[in-house]
Amino acid sequence: MTTREELQKLSPADVRSAIRHGVYQYDTAGLAGGYIQGNLAIMPAEYATDFLRFCQRNPKPCPLVGVSDTGDPYLPTLGNDIDIRTDVPKYKIFRNGEFQDLVTDIKDVWQDDFVTFVLGCSFSFEEALLEDGIEVRHITKGTTVPMFRTNLQATPAGPFSGEYVVSMRPMKVKDAIRAIEITSRFPEAHGTPVHLGDPLQIGIRDVTTPDFGDPIEIKADEIPVFWACGVTPQVAISNAKPSICITHAPGHMLITDIPSANVGRGPDKF
Amino acid sequence: MTTREELQKLSPADVRSAIRHGVYQYDTAGLAGGYIQGNLAIMPAEYATDFLRFCQRNPKPCPLVGVSDTGDPYLPTLGNDIDIRTDVPKYKIFRNGEFQDLVTDIKDVWQDDFVTFVLGCSFSFEEALLEDGIEVRHITKGTTVPMFRTNLQATPAGPFSGEYVVSMRPMKVKDAIRAIEITSRFPEAHGTPVHLGDPLQIGIRDVTTPDFGDPIEIKADEIPVFWACGVTPQVAISNAKPSICITHAPGHMLITDIPSANVGRGPDKF
Repeated sequence: MTTREELQKLSPADVRSAIRHGVYQYDTAGLAGGYIQGNLAIMPAEYATDFLRFCQRNPKPCPLVGVSDTGDPYLPTLGNDIDIRTDVPKYKIFRNGEFQDLVTDIKDVWQDDFVTFVLGCSFSFEEALLEDGIEVRHITKGTTVPMFRTNLQATPAGPFSGEYVVSMRPMKVKDAIRAIEITSRFPEAHGTPVHLGDPLQIGIRDVTTPDFGDPIEIKADEIPVFWACGVTPQVAISNAKPSICITHAPGHMLITDIPSANVGRGPDKF
Repeated sequence: MTTREELQKLSPADVRSAIRHGVYQYDTAGLAGGYIQGNLAIMPAEYATDFLRFCQRNPKPCPLVGVSDTGDPYLPTLGNDIDIRTDVPKYKIFRNGEFQDLVTDIKDVWQDDFVTFVLGCSFSFEEALLEDGIEVRHITKGTTVPMFRTNLQATPAGPFSGEYVVSMRPMKVKDAIRAIEITSRFPEAHGTPVHLGDPLQIGIRDVTTPDFGDPIEIKADEIPVFWACGVTPQVAISNAKPSICITHAPGHMLITDIPSANVGRGPDKF
């Protein structure tokens, strides 16, 4: 049960088990289809209130889908028996804002004051775009979505601040309109775009040269459509320079037990 | 500029100014129409992270629309020059979970470690129901919406826990369906109902005798429709017994500068 094809058919719990036991340590795109995957940020409790404020003030780049209790490595609001120390394929460890290590579990660095934050990611809405027949070109091409720094400043909270980073998907105008309609149903996955059309209006000088990810062709009858991106909180965290912070490695997400179709505001049981 | 009729026509800032200067100290229903009004909870920073978790885990009863910086009495993400010490008509002060005092400002009790939380309220969606031609009977009758304790347990966070309190509006089935459609657009104002029909299914034994507010008639061709209610966080706070906590007095809300039509996930600037 280690190939991508096999893992696509498994439940979130089974994929997490494969990851936990070290038999799968690669990216999670397309795995356990139909369930919300999440960006990860783990930091000491002293930063938690300000990071929660940052997410509340900037919900498009930072759609909070789950928060752990202090020191508790489990996330009962996101799934059964999720152990955040082992259930993500690859983690990045930062100390004082500097990248230090890429690891496959964080059992050795876990601290009793850690708080885990899980933020929604674009996988959920891309799945819905594809189901609607809209091409998502970086998926067609098998590349990473192009991402750009912008001049849109996030609303700061304590030490957390910085500009929005956006992901770009080229589309025909008709598809862009439909994509806005569809993504309005996914507030927990970055929601509607923050911009479309002229890249310069949000401070992007060269739309052919992304700051992160791979370049992608924009055809003559297409416009670029820009969504707030989960790299935004990573920029804010690197500006805040917490003593220690752990994130997922790009593309290596936490797979939750929450169906992607479970739109709305998240974890309400009722 | 002190009568309700005059205040209905004023901007949020002008109504807040009238409240701040003591010329209006009554309930805010219908004032500054078209702008989000909010429930208020102020508590020391030591409780803030857990209360943020409680809101994140229970967004229907606790739709967080704004959080202040620690010790800062202003709320720049909700409006210009909102001073939370003076801009709400009536406040309730609780110590160790016990009600202590009803006051018209909190300048004397303000602490440097206070954090202000503003939660969405049902005024926004009731406005939208009325505009759609749906009767909201307690508004027709000029009474307070009936509210009931339930057996639905909120997801706890630290010391915050308790059952959902719900508000009830009787409707024809056709109107109930339309009301669900409309309130799905207002996640920041309790969103869709948590129940409709048989009250006993959520632990309500006698739907004619509310725990809070006034009774209301349910006609033969109507069903009761139940929404999560802002009394829920007040129950959770009284269970948590913070050393000090300040809330608005029922119906005496904070009026923000955010248009009710500004649906979605709140304070994003972009």
